Amino acid sequence: MVTKVNGSTKRVGLSPTMHNGFYGRDILSVKQFAREDLDYIFGVAEEMEAIVRRVGATDLLKGSILANLFYEPSTRTSSSFAAAMQRLGGSVIPINEVRYSSVTKGESLPDTIRTLEAYADLVVLRHPEVGASQIAARYSRKPIINAGDGVGEHPTQALLDLFTIQQELGRVDGLHIAMAGDLKYGRTVHSLARLLCLYDVEMSFVSPDILRLPEEVRDEVIALGKPVRETHAIEDIIETVDVLYVTRVQKERFSDLTQYESVRNLYEVTTDLMSRAKPKMILMHPLPRVGEIHYDVDADPRAAYFRQMENGMYVRMALLAAVLGKA
Amino acid sequence: MVTKVNGSTKRVGLSPTMHNGFYGRDILSVKQFAREDLDYIFGVAEEMEAIVRRVGATDLLKGSILANLFYEPSTRTSSSFAAAMQRLGGSVIPINEVRYSSVTKGESLPDTIRTLEAYADLVVLRHPEVGASQIAARYSRKPIINAGDGVGEHPTQALLDLFTIQQELGRVDGLHIAMAGDLKYGRTVHSLARLLCLYDVEMSFVSPDILRLPEEVRDEVIALGKPVRETHAIEDIIETVDVLYVTRVQKERFSDLTQYESVRNLYEVTTDLMSRAKPKMILMHPLPRVGEIHYDVDADPRAAYFRQMENGMYVRMALLAAVLGKA
Amino acid sequence: MVTKVNGSTKRVGLSPTMHNGFYGRDILSVKQFAREDLDYIFGVAEEMEAIVRRVGATDLLKGSILANLFYEPSTRTSSSFAAAMQRLGGSVIPINEVRYSSVTKGESLPDTIRTLEAYADLVVLRHPEVGASQIAARYSRKPIINAGDGVGEHPTQALLDLFTIQQELGRVDGLHIAMAGDLKYGRTVHSLARLLCLYDVEMSFVSPDILRLPEEVRDEVIALGKPVRETHAIEDIIETVDVLYVTRVQKERFSDLTQYESVRNLYEVTTDLMSRAKPKMILMHPLPRVGEIHYDVDADPRAAYFRQMENGMYVRMALLAAVLGKA
Repeated sequence: MVTKVNGSTKRVGLSPTMHNGFYGRDILSVKQFAREDLDYIFGVAEEMEAIVRRVGATDLLKGSILANLFYEPSTRTSSSFAAAMQRLGGSVIPINEVRYSSVTKGESLPDTIRTLEAYADLVVLRHPEVGASQIAARYSRKPIINAGDGVGEHPTQALLDLFTIQQELGRVDGLHIAMAGDLKYGRTVHSLARLLCLYDVEMSFVSPDILRLPEEVRDEVIALGKPVRETHAIEDIIETVDVLYVTRVQKERFSDLTQYESVRNLYEVTTDLMSRAKPKMILMHPLPRVGEIHYDVDADPRAAYFRQMENGMYVRMALLAAVLGKA
Repeated sequence: MVTKVNGSTKRVGLSPTMHNGFYGRDILSVKQFAREDLDYIFGVAEEMEAIVRRVGATDLLKGSILANLFYEPSTRTSSSFAAAMQRLGGSVIPINEVRYSSVTKGESLPDTIRTLEAYADLVVLRHPEVGASQIAARYSRKPIINAGDGVGEHPTQALLDLFTIQQELGRVDGLHIAMAGDLKYGRTVHSLARLLCLYDVEMSFVSPDILRLPEEVRDEVIALGKPVRETHAIEDIIETVDVLYVTRVQKERFSDLTQYESVRNLYEVTTDLMSRAKPKMILMHPLPRVGEIHYDVDADPRAAYFRQMENGMYVRMALLAAVLGKA
Repeated sequence: MVTKVNGSTKRVGLSPTMHNGFYGRDILSVKQFAREDLDYIFGVAEEMEAIVRRVGATDLLKGSILANLFYEPSTRTSSSFAAAMQRLGGSVIPINEVRYSSVTKGESLPDTIRTLEAYADLVVLRHPEVGASQIAARYSRKPIINAGDGVGEHPTQALLDLFTIQQELGRVDGLHIAMAGDLKYGRTVHSLARLLCLYDVEMSFVSPDILRLPEEVRDEVIALGKPVRETHAIEDIIETVDVLYVTRVQKERFSDLTQYESVRNLYEVTTDLMSRAKPKMILMHPLPRVGEIHYDVDADPRAAYFRQMENGMYVRMALLAAVLGKA
């Protein structure tokens, strides 16, 4: 099925993989990507980083407009997309005030999307409900980029996480990667785990019982032949990991606050803990953090989370350029 | 009376017509326009559409700044103006947070306007009170564009509505145009009805008694020699209309909610209703809709409301360029 | 101590003066500036004014991004910085929704700053707490501009105030400058008084007892050898002042509202009062006003407050260009 994008085509629906055919496509799920897609995007992201470091910006997307539609607040993600678009010479329409928009007058998501596609060349969508970006994509002739849909997916976060691992350690294959914290509600972890199945890696999952990786994700990983180790203690894996990926326990996902209090401070990365880790490993976090990583760890060269955040801009620049056919 | 705009002139006050003299003028009311003005703006809007379809954007307003001042929320209108300015190469200062601005510190509208004219080249104003844009224009040396003032006017909406009729049906003269729904509070309808008096058209007004067209507007239309037909049922006119313009019953205009409930679902356009309409008519709606037009009508080629919305961007591009002397 | 800014250097900490070395520096306090610094910035600001009047904008900062981070609302200051950046060809990421951002997820100011410096080339910060911009600067590799920190400083306001005096009266030395209103909480007045100590001026301070200039500021001024006159009545100084700088009594600074009511209308500048002032003096106000200056005074050519506001854009253009090394 093919629909029109400004006289050219948008390919609708998720193919199992998209290889280098990003032009006119939606970015909805990490399940869209084959390794070739990742190699392509990461290659472009490296070029984007070089451009930004050398001259700050390009005119590649001059005259293009991004609608940045956030039904949920996220300064970090919305600023990252805005900066990515602006460093490519494009413009941004920020729509953060959704409680205040047509939506409060009773408008449906499809109508809002069809409004914005009349004005913009693509739409970045953050929405509290799983599947919202799929609905948006179904109705839009212009590309939709999923910037997080509830506890569902956040594919650009997973891409920047993986890009960071490759940039920091030179490869992904052969690594031992541990994810710790809230593995139940943390969509970041779900997306990254799925993406890592494309590589030859060993994964460890560290969490309390009530925040274990959902069975569905665990089964997917196992079905793809990856060894899965689950444990309660970071200490069990700290000496062997190449990547320790820590997540925030998200208060807003708990209906029972006493349960939240019982687990919120379970994992704290200290300089003491880091002293037992390999000298060449990296410590990652999608941020914001609320105590999971002590501030004095920031000075450790293995603390990669601020570089990880910067990488987000380069990966999003690559995606925007690719989707608009200018990469 | 003449005041200065950056070394050139702003002509103050409403002349009965403005012909092609848009440069430095405020856009406050449809009463400003003669047919020649509309011909001129629609000609420029067609050029804008051609530019956007061919290359996406121009540099016509490079270096110019639009202050987008919204005292009331309106994602659609503010995004449309923002996209219009950006596609002309200009920049936008969005001010949506008025409850949070100097206004909450007790500042008057004239002082806010004089602040923004110090920074921007023109101001787009949405305000809940009738006449606010007239006050703003009186104090501003820079052009003001009224983007809706309470139940008063919304002239750029009327322009894009008329432009859509002309683009879709090739002409305005000789058409039968019906407006249905909330004709009492719907400023869109008031502005469009007034504008249509410049043409040789037949107008029908479909509403329940409590939402009839205000006497003032009806008298204006009649005084201009237009035949006015009022009815309660869309069925009375569906077979003969060239344009069916449906409006949302706006909950926020009712103090008595039971009255709102009694009329909110009175008119619903279904595929069944559309099957009785002419094959070349068009169905319009200013959007957002909340049930007045069923979703399965969207597939009907006569459903023009999404094209209507896109036309809004082209008409606003034409107005911005004209007012800043670059059309 | 030197840290990296995109391959070049940011000089950290406040030197007593910075002369023309603005490149890569934070702008945190008026205490940073020597007269040479002011001469330099005002010279650039004059050039910026000439550019804006002649052609509206330049491409000097094309490709650069400003993060406009406002923890407190301020339409005026945020719009002024946004317009300044855009008229220099740069882009802006507006972050006004801080209650809605990562901050509400518990993120610290340093982490927020380190996020934004990953995307932007400099950060403008408005924060309700004294010293916030110093903290931000300590953690940021990119320049920070303090746009007001609680009752602390607002250095760019003081610069534009001083620039206005020089532009309007041709000089600062030799003038009698009076500040009236809330001298206790008005950070504008504190910053301006400190800056004026670099010049040969006479200062008068007009306020009720409960809103007197804080002892700390008064002592600083006296220590720098400036004569300080304090009085309760504008009438005492109106006939001799060259500059009358009036401030709003800020309701939000009072915990006791009856105290606020007792002083809010103490000073009102009327046409009658102005008739007793020198023919070449100027009347200034940082705006917004809530009654301190009557509207009919606006027509007086000595009323400089709207020109003062416009000067804010030129001074901020000069600072942005200087800090990014492009002045």
